[in-house]
Amino acid sequence: MTTVAAYAAPAAKAPLERTTIERRPVGEFDVLIDIKFAGICHSDIHQAQEGWGTAIFPMVPGHEIAGIVSEVGSGVTKHKVGDRVGVGCMVDSCRECDNCKAGIEQHCTRGNVGTYNAIGKDGEPTYGGYSEKVVVDENFVVRIPDGLALDVAAPLLCAGITTYSPLKHWGAGPGKNVAVIGLGGLGHMAVKIADALGAEVTVLSQTLSKRDDGLKLGADHYYATSDADTFKQLAGTFDLIVSTVSAPLDFGAYLSLLKTGGALVNVGAPEEPIALNLFSLIGGNKTLAGSMIGGIAETQEMLDFCAEHGLGAEIELISASEINEAYERVLNSDVRYRFVIDTATI
Amino acid sequence: MTTVAAYAAPAAKAPLERTTIERRPVGEFDVLIDIKFAGICHSDIHQAQEGWGTAIFPMVPGHEIAGIVSEVGSGVTKHKVGDRVGVGCMVDSCRECDNCKAGIEQHCTRGNVGTYNAIGKDGEPTYGGYSEKVVVDENFVVRIPDGLALDVAAPLLCAGITTYSPLKHWGAGPGKNVAVIGLGGLGHMAVKIADALGAEVTVLSQTLSKRDDGLKLGADHYYATSDADTFKQLAGTFDLIVSTVSAPLDFGAYLSLLKTGGALVNVGAPEEPIALNLFSLIGGNKTLAGSMIGGIAETQEMLDFCAEHGLGAEIELISASEINEAYERVLNSDVRYRFVIDTATI
Repeated sequence: MTTVAAYAAPAAKAPLERTTIERRPVGEFDVLIDIKFAGICHSDIHQAQEGWGTAIFPMVPGHEIAGIVSEVGSGVTKHKVGDRVGVGCMVDSCRECDNCKAGIEQHCTRGNVGTYNAIGKDGEPTYGGYSEKVVVDENFVVRIPDGLALDVAAPLLCAGITTYSPLKHWGAGPGKNVAVIGLGGLGHMAVKIADALGAEVTVLSQTLSKRDDGLKLGADHYYATSDADTFKQLAGTFDLIVSTVSAPLDFGAYLSLLKTGGALVNVGAPEEPIALNLFSLIGGNKTLAGSMIGGIAETQEMLDFCAEHGLGAEIELISASEINEAYERVLNSDVRYRFVIDTATI
Repeated sequence: MTTVAAYAAPAAKAPLERTTIERRPVGEFDVLIDIKFAGICHSDIHQAQEGWGTAIFPMVPGHEIAGIVSEVGSGVTKHKVGDRVGVGCMVDSCRECDNCKAGIEQHCTRGNVGTYNAIGKDGEPTYGGYSEKVVVDENFVVRIPDGLALDVAAPLLCAGITTYSPLKHWGAGPGKNVAVIGLGGLGHMAVKIADALGAEVTVLSQTLSKRDDGLKLGADHYYATSDADTFKQLAGTFDLIVSTVSAPLDFGAYLSLLKTGGALVNVGAPEEPIALNLFSLIGGNKTLAGSMIGGIAETQEMLDFCAEHGLGAEIELISASEINEAYERVLNSDVRYRFVIDTATI
């Protein structure tokens, strides 16, 4: 066991504070990672505040982890000391079910093991990236290509794969008209990735306040959804819409922006049920879908794609002592576009 | 102009009665069809009762038409006198928009021309299949292969294509586990077609009252949705679910029956909005979709497929004088599985 410094929420809704945690010894197939950077995802806050049901405390959040391998187990073949690596939302799965075999470990039918706020196969709670080091099975560690700086790579481990996976699955590419609802942590990566995939990209945001940013990030068009004219102008325009927001949208209105056969895919969602008239799907053979992160192989593919296209997240680098303040700012949508903790400051 | 006998609703909610209507002269690209059989679709009743908004009266319903060509215009190349042909839900479209060019005329962006309860390009109301003859542009007339009797072919023009199109689009076939919600006019064709496509087919019906029929039609399994155990037993089972019902379902429960990445496609739908928690889509990368009939080329493909596999509708053949009684029985779900009018009795 190794004692390492970390930032933890001691209880639900309590401010995070510096503490120490124990990391397991490096097993045969384990990789010890010196964490360099950890992104702050909105879901860290949901879980630290126990907004998604009973959680495990103390909680060390963080599932956007970038670092350097400092030790490997005797059986490890995929990584070596000195490698630049990342860890995302999960650190294990059953590896035997159809979904695991199909490379969609996030949908492991026995439940994947979350990077934090979960119980690992050793029966111990998992602790996330707001810490100095982490021990992870080599199969749940991905390579960060040399072309990507570790700080801007960290958010790709959640925000990147969460948007890359549905964009690829639903065919974003040349000749396709793609809209992204919301320009936050997920949305800004969706814009960059959809643009790099060759799609024509439109941001649909409540206001035009981030318009200049959106265009710089790769959007071709930017519309305010608070303007009713937007829905008239853009009726029947998009092959694909990716919603990254958790606000309760008027889904009938957004579905009307799709072409015949188009899809609206949700990677964010309101906690309450939405009201949906099914004729808004039937009339134009339309689709409302959901997507949750991505598998390990696809996460590696996403990182390679981002490196090839020079896509990192837009970040605000903070020290660990600023985490609680950053949480407040995330809740106020006051971040452009991802906070990343410099873990050297823990 | 030709005067022909027909059954029409003189006003909303009024019983249908025998009358005469005028059919336009056979134009250069027109086909005159001696109608032999016309299916009764639930949507005939919706429209005759003005349940879907303001309608045009008198109304001659019927968009499941099978007959014999008795005259063709000078420019007609696709059909000749004596051909066995069918007409479905539409008799024209703009033919210029992207959707028409893509062969999905049902989604014509300027609106297709309905077989009845619509205004044709000549500015006159269209009248449907509950009549002796109809004049239709050759491009909206399909061939009924010799292997299919005209009476059991008629319902394929709506119930057949409405279910064939989503089953094909969403990949029903060997190795796929497909459920059909509801065993009515649409549902029984969905079962036959999914079975012929090679899928493993399950019927999800409120009760087991039609179980024997379902299994004979090609279903491998039959479950009652009034039994809560059904949802436990079948959790995560299906690649595809086709809902043919208009009852307000618990969509969260039905989505839980899908495998990861599965799709629930609605060809029927309640008129009121449904409540849907989007996490039931996100958690398993699931899809809720809609589908509306099919294009002309796909309708031909469906008829050829049905002929090849010997699939006609299960029908109750009635005389025209029984139409009003048949409407009552459709409203009471008391038909196995489609009423078809012998138009010789008009």
